[in-house]
Amino acid sequence: MPASELNLPASVRPPQRVLLGPGPSVIDPAVLSAMSRPTLGHLDPAFLAIMDEVRDMLRRVMGTENELTFPMSGTGSAGMETCFVNLIEPGDAVLVAVNGVFGTRMADVARRAGAVVSTVEQTWGRSFSAEDLRAGTEGKPFKLLCVVHAETSTGVLQDLTAARTVADECGALLLVDCVTSLGGHALHLDDMGVDAAYSGTQKCLSCPPGLSPVSFSERACAVLAERKTPVQSWYLDLSMISSYWGSERAYHHTAPINMLYGLHESLRLILIEGLDRRVARHGLHARALAAGLESIGLSLRVEAHERLAPLTAVAIPEGIEDGRARAFLLDQFGLEIGGGLGPMAGNTWRIGLMGAGATRHSVTLCLAALRAALIDQGQDPGVDPLLAAGAVYMS
Amino acid sequence: MPASELNLPASVRPPQRVLLGPGPSVIDPAVLSAMSRPTLGHLDPAFLAIMDEVRDMLRRVMGTENELTFPMSGTGSAGMETCFVNLIEPGDAVLVAVNGVFGTRMADVARRAGAVVSTVEQTWGRSFSAEDLRAGTEGKPFKLLCVVHAETSTGVLQDLTAARTVADECGALLLVDCVTSLGGHALHLDDMGVDAAYSGTQKCLSCPPGLSPVSFSERACAVLAERKTPVQSWYLDLSMISSYWGSERAYHHTAPINMLYGLHESLRLILIEGLDRRVARHGLHARALAAGLESIGLSLRVEAHERLAPLTAVAIPEGIEDGRARAFLLDQFGLEIGGGLGPMAGNTWRIGLMGAGATRHSVTLCLAALRAALIDQGQDPGVDPLLAAGAVYMS
Repeated sequence: MPASELNLPASVRPPQRVLLGPGPSVIDPAVLSAMSRPTLGHLDPAFLAIMDEVRDMLRRVMGTENELTFPMSGTGSAGMETCFVNLIEPGDAVLVAVNGVFGTRMADVARRAGAVVSTVEQTWGRSFSAEDLRAGTEGKPFKLLCVVHAETSTGVLQDLTAARTVADECGALLLVDCVTSLGGHALHLDDMGVDAAYSGTQKCLSCPPGLSPVSFSERACAVLAERKTPVQSWYLDLSMISSYWGSERAYHHTAPINMLYGLHESLRLILIEGLDRRVARHGLHARALAAGLESIGLSLRVEAHERLAPLTAVAIPEGIEDGRARAFLLDQFGLEIGGGLGPMAGNTWRIGLMGAGATRHSVTLCLAALRAALIDQGQDPGVDPLLAAGAVYMS
Repeated sequence: MPASELNLPASVRPPQRVLLGPGPSVIDPAVLSAMSRPTLGHLDPAFLAIMDEVRDMLRRVMGTENELTFPMSGTGSAGMETCFVNLIEPGDAVLVAVNGVFGTRMADVARRAGAVVSTVEQTWGRSFSAEDLRAGTEGKPFKLLCVVHAETSTGVLQDLTAARTVADECGALLLVDCVTSLGGHALHLDDMGVDAAYSGTQKCLSCPPGLSPVSFSERACAVLAERKTPVQSWYLDLSMISSYWGSERAYHHTAPINMLYGLHESLRLILIEGLDRRVARHGLHARALAAGLESIGLSLRVEAHERLAPLTAVAIPEGIEDGRARAFLLDQFGLEIGGGLGPMAGNTWRIGLMGAGATRHSVTLCLAALRAALIDQGQDPGVDPLLAAGAVYMS
């Protein structure tokens, strides 16, 4: 029967977009091309060599020599859950620092894994000092101290030195969400004393969503080795998955082969650019964006000293309707920016300049389109934001 | 710094393979091409439309009108775990029919979800009759009866009518692993009275690994709605994920966008071919393969009346070394077939004719190459297996 009579949709043909939301981010065509290469078997020696290369490059990008470093077969939240279900046994005490959606999610995931969870709270849009975190410990010991390095919901960067200090004081392993920081901010797991970390591919690694890099220190591995109870998740059980990524090559589940091709290429591109250069690039374009936004009277949710480079949270001005503005950006300019989450829903925009999206082109498009969106709702800022952004580039 | 000085691997360039193992399977180039199209945001209206199309097509391919039908963001084992962690609360009684690796895995996953698991065992390579399953119930009630429709480790097809009958007798929901049957065997969830099912994309759907379609009947949804305890997995919690796939479009995790493009295309190809034609095609090529294998003295692990079409398990002849033979096939012919698992490791080959791999080309290559592999180890069968296979095609 001809396809036209089967009531079938056409093949996907995505409209042209520039992804400047909280992720997925702009993706280099080389990564998409890599993903479309022929699928290999998950035990094919040629694929095992690719896995080894992914591991090696991932270690370099994460700044670690941790043996247990590889991408989990799920999106960033699967990486979060991997850390908790493997490190936690029922009744373990965990302290989670909550200043946004992802800290909140950590606490939820930890509870489901059977942890006794304490939280220390901070205003959304602010980071934690060592003193703040210390107050949360109340002098008690914890198995894990959990912080979000880059809180994607608010645009806040967390100082990891403070977190490491307090983790030492309360005898805890330091667990870090680096979903939005990896590849966009300086991050060196070993130097920073991170014991467990998870990330996602769809932010500053500029790869489609679907994989979650994780890494565990020797101290964390010792905790894994000493478990008394089985890991509650079979799919995320590191004791079995590490046998596949390790020299045994034991079959656990069928790895998402083509996603790994994409990650392989994105890691290559990052190392070719150089981590320092890449971090500097993210910083430059974030500063230009901020200058442009502020020049037209928009206020940012986070102060400069603790503001993320890859994600900028902007207060939506009085009288501007969020949904209409974002639909305007998408329809008129093919530009995606993100809305707010939780208490920031409807009053905040989140602009991501991540990976291949952290460019002067992105900043230019975003500022010009945002200005047009304000004018569309009758608020002409009267100033061209590209002037202030341009000044940053010229300085 | 030039890439050559960075000690970086080259971009992935997979060698040419014909994947006739237990999956991943041969993939239509249209699916790989779809996967490489530009990534959209997971809340972009254009992407939400693609999600709706995937749901609709998936329902047609699974033979169901179940509202709760969508692909989970993980490989097939994530789908298995999704079924158990959502349907089970601690202490629930579950009966698992075990006649291979995947039944064994079900029992393991169910235990980790807190179920009180009973198993009923069958010789690997044989299916369960209603009488066999009934004996396993010992007259007791169960919340779930779990069977593997297509046991990928042995090549056995399970009669679902028998399973449905016994599930009714013990008051259980029927949970079915259809990882290797979906798209290759007749499967109509609604007609067969399946309450919960999971599959994988990398078998007869001929899509790369990374997604796991699941579906839940109204009765199963009622069980989900009546839960007293939180689902132990946040990542796999259907109460939240269904809000993203449903009309609320609530953000849960970032969906693996490009994988969904691939699944969209593979479902289109299946529906264009037609399910009946596709099932007949799998049957035809499996019969030709079996005839060819038997004509050169190889014996099959499963009797014809309960043998899978997409996967044929073959006893490795005395004196033939498994590893050497499979390396020969891979190196000389670019042909991947699978080894055995568990008690079948080293004594069984598993040949998959799945999706785009279920063709006369595949059968021809496989038989010719296997014959050469036997000759390479000094066992010339003296007969050309293509004659017997050809006879099936001519009949």
